[in-house]
Amino acid sequence: MTVTKYDVRRGAYYDSVMLMQLQRGLIGLAGVIDAGVVMATPANRDLLAANNLLPDSLDASPDDLLIVVKAEDDSLASDAMDQVDALLARRRAAGSQDFRPRSLSAAVKQYPESNWVLVSVPGRYAAGVARQALDLNKHVFLYSDNVSLEDEISLKKAAREKGLLVMGPDCGTAIINGIGLGFANRVRRGPIGLVGAAGTGLQAVTTQIHNLGGGISHAIGTGGRDLKSEVGAITAHQALDLLARDEETKVIVLISKPPSPDVATGLISAAQGTRKPVVLYFIGYPPPARKIGNLHFAISLSEAAELAIETEDERLETSGESPVSSLYLRGLFSGGTLAYEVLLGLQAILSPIYSNAPITNNQLLKDPLHSEAHTIIDLGDEFFMVGRLHPMIDNDLRIRRMKQEATDPEVGMILFDIVLGEGSHPDPAGELVPVIQEIGEKRLETEFVAIVIGTDDDPQNLQSQVSQLREASVTVFRTATEAVEYIGLRFGAGRKNEFTPIDLEQLTQPLAAINVGLESFYESLTSQGAQAVHVDWRPPAGGNERLASLLARMKSRD
Amino acid sequence: MTVTKYDVRRGAYYDSVMLMQLQRGLIGLAGVIDAGVVMATPANRDLLAANNLLPDSLDASPDDLLIVVKAEDDSLASDAMDQVDALLARRRAAGSQDFRPRSLSAAVKQYPESNWVLVSVPGRYAAGVARQALDLNKHVFLYSDNVSLEDEISLKKAAREKGLLVMGPDCGTAIINGIGLGFANRVRRGPIGLVGAAGTGLQAVTTQIHNLGGGISHAIGTGGRDLKSEVGAITAHQALDLLARDEETKVIVLISKPPSPDVATGLISAAQGTRKPVVLYFIGYPPPARKIGNLHFAISLSEAAELAIETEDERLETSGESPVSSLYLRGLFSGGTLAYEVLLGLQAILSPIYSNAPITNNQLLKDPLHSEAHTIIDLGDEFFMVGRLHPMIDNDLRIRRMKQEATDPEVGMILFDIVLGEGSHPDPAGELVPVIQEIGEKRLETEFVAIVIGTDDDPQNLQSQVSQLREASVTVFRTATEAVEYIGLRFGAGRKNEFTPIDLEQLTQPLAAINVGLESFYESLTSQGAQAVHVDWRPPAGGNERLASLLARMKSRD
Repeated sequence: MTVTKYDVRRGAYYDSVMLMQLQRGLIGLAGVIDAGVVMATPANRDLLAANNLLPDSLDASPDDLLIVVKAEDDSLASDAMDQVDALLARRRAAGSQDFRPRSLSAAVKQYPESNWVLVSVPGRYAAGVARQALDLNKHVFLYSDNVSLEDEISLKKAAREKGLLVMGPDCGTAIINGIGLGFANRVRRGPIGLVGAAGTGLQAVTTQIHNLGGGISHAIGTGGRDLKSEVGAITAHQALDLLARDEETKVIVLISKPPSPDVATGLISAAQGTRKPVVLYFIGYPPPARKIGNLHFAISLSEAAELAIETEDERLETSGESPVSSLYLRGLFSGGTLAYEVLLGLQAILSPIYSNAPITNNQLLKDPLHSEAHTIIDLGDEFFMVGRLHPMIDNDLRIRRMKQEATDPEVGMILFDIVLGEGSHPDPAGELVPVIQEIGEKRLETEFVAIVIGTDDDPQNLQSQVSQLREASVTVFRTATEAVEYIGLRFGAGRKNEFTPIDLEQLTQPLAAINVGLESFYESLTSQGAQAVHVDWRPPAGGNERLASLLARMKSRD
Repeated sequence: MTVTKYDVRRGAYYDSVMLMQLQRGLIGLAGVIDAGVVMATPANRDLLAANNLLPDSLDASPDDLLIVVKAEDDSLASDAMDQVDALLARRRAAGSQDFRPRSLSAAVKQYPESNWVLVSVPGRYAAGVARQALDLNKHVFLYSDNVSLEDEISLKKAAREKGLLVMGPDCGTAIINGIGLGFANRVRRGPIGLVGAAGTGLQAVTTQIHNLGGGISHAIGTGGRDLKSEVGAITAHQALDLLARDEETKVIVLISKPPSPDVATGLISAAQGTRKPVVLYFIGYPPPARKIGNLHFAISLSEAAELAIETEDERLETSGESPVSSLYLRGLFSGGTLAYEVLLGLQAILSPIYSNAPITNNQLLKDPLHSEAHTIIDLGDEFFMVGRLHPMIDNDLRIRRMKQEATDPEVGMILFDIVLGEGSHPDPAGELVPVIQEIGEKRLETEFVAIVIGTDDDPQNLQSQVSQLREASVTVFRTATEAVEYIGLRFGAGRKNEFTPIDLEQLTQPLAAINVGLESFYESLTSQGAQAVHVDWRPPAGGNERLASLLARMKSRD
């Protein structure tokens, strides 16, 4: 019969490499069937239970180390437990470094030219180490997870003020000037710069760019939460700005899970402002179009890589027209699907945007009869249709609404559709143009844009419909996609965020780093030829929380 | 000073064309500034208010007709109101038809070879007329909106049982055998068949196909709610089945707003089963891939049209492998973004699917330690990471989970990623392959699929990693996209729905229709050369609800 024994070590710090090595050491002992060496968090207890390794009655807190051994019999289990201290004491083979600083500040004194600090200590210590690095004017690569959102925000705000980058927390990968930080693939140097709130996303795209024959200038990770409203994409904005100024970078790729709508709008605007081709892939966010000016939208990691290579040599046309970005768009549709597709395209570009046929709940227009901010109205919605002909037959509703919108001084563009064909009004342009002209005389600054759906064979005479509109200075498109692209250019002003710019030289200098945490990251840096120092880091008071807080209080009284 | 006068007509029926004509007639009178002729619904009252036409104290119910006139003075307003009856009495020019049946059943007696009934009467009468049409064994094009979901479901279930189609309610467009129903553009005949739960979506795509030189076999509208869970895409499934059997149709296009997940899975499976190229555009739904077997995913109406033309001549390869569709997939990822992208791709194909990093709330896996149905796990999630090395460095967690999944007899495929590069484990395949072989020996039917992310320059030796896996019979892909495509083929069995098939001949015979409602739809049918009869329809008891229900009760006692 098998026997399971366990031991609890309270309040002492062991790094995760030591825990893994201890577990492997125990499993390798004679007669040991399985072993678990974990911090006693609820998740880890559940994991032990799933492996039939959880002791029945266990008195341990999440900060305690739990060591469990399952062996063939009682004496073999006891023998294994007796080996724990010996296994823990077994030092790993020493690194190539003779002397290891014990603290970050000591490392900086020893190695003042270092410009980056890699932090991969356990989450609860990580913010403290990162803050120290910022105080010492170093950029931070923050690999650690389990860092609070509040800490992330305060670190990033502090960094932005000083012109420093905080990549992370939970940033798995970056490539700075040819050197991979954390997990990173070895890829060719080249003209493609990346910004990513998606670790393996960045790895997959940089890898595929390499495999397709392309190359990478820099790949800047931001951590997965950077594009949340609360953080406001601080790091992504800094990174975009850096890559925009970096001469080596000819194309920028931006990858992230779907950002908050306000964050998306800001980032897209900043991407437009880079004046370089930018490939965007907001994973799971329906792309507004294939292309809006210098922006290319991908629908997969693979496609992001392909688009980046294809657009390396793209020449950007500069649009001569001045943007209308400070004013609002009002879309008055007879076609529900057209309204929906246009909303889908514009939601990433115009914010806030409302509709009586919203895609997300927060886009719902409170009163369908009154527009707010940017608004897309489906005038064929059931709400309007009791006892009334469809707006494809009867233009009355739309004409009244056009006049109503024109009384709003904040309206810069009125967009509408005309759907020709059997069953529709015989001359929609003929009815709408006089109203457009009437409005135009009073409001020179109001732009009219129309989407005309129809064929040469339709009964209304497509050509005459289009020319009537164009003669009234209406900009006419034949598909919703083209209209979205146009509006995206007209409203996307390429607004610049105001913040202390990061010194571009720091990105293009040879990378010199201080590593605090996982030693394997240090080894990987030096194997890539980077200058690096590894800090022999230990948590304050050896991981004893009570003692640590006592020390901190004493220190603050200094 | 302007004067506004109004009149309320209780419980009488006027069709919406008459209302529009009355309003125009009133506005055309001398001294009339504006007029409104509407059913007194809350929406219409608000609309009048927005136009400064709402009387101050108004006693009218939503069933009442409200006539408002604003004129230059009191006597001109009175003069206008005096004209109302004369204007209402003014008959529109008679159609080309000499005798008009007064009811649907009379029309069918007069014209028994008719196979379609177009219904565009007001919403509250529409379900009744449609039901009558089904009883008379006719297909229904149901243009009317404001029909309840319950009525839609019961109509469609009845139709499916009889092998009949109900397009709608709120179906704006269709093209059957070259004849447009409702609103429809005049387009070339050709090999592209469409199914659409999106009226102007269908119009935009058929139009663009025509404008690009392509042609349409049939375009079948379903009404906007058909792809909701409650309706279960009854019409869309019937339509797909029809177009699959129709020899003239070489490519199928399916357009809809995002369907419910279960509906999406069923439709995608049915689309796979058509064995024709199918272009799918679920507006606003992130496409799972560009292409999965015979399925092509578009991201805009324009692109749907382009893809349809491009794939007209596509030859379909038949996969030799038998599908694993009755079993479950378990994805065990070290890369969070890879897990997310794979989930994004598979959510349309596998249902139900769960994850500890879900895209939608209903995908949340209750317990990250235990998979359910199809499951995608991000093993690098913070939940697992306290005091533990990342699964890219330490394979222990994944090996244990693989063994755990292998004890579940419902598991047919285990998917995992291997991310090579700096910082990662030096030989992940070397650690995983023995476990895969051990499982494989016990469970021959379990398929292993790996996504390997890496470059030739990575320290692990990419080639050797891939060959180790392949030697252990693991199917290896280099991108998430390729893996999604493969899984989509393996699990997409092209399941067939069981229902009474619609007689294909009815689709390919010259269209012969009975029109109940908007006369303009009748005129459009005959102008296209279709056989048609217009019913001079009046609501039961002239629109008087109380009388109508009394008549209905008397009738049911017959």
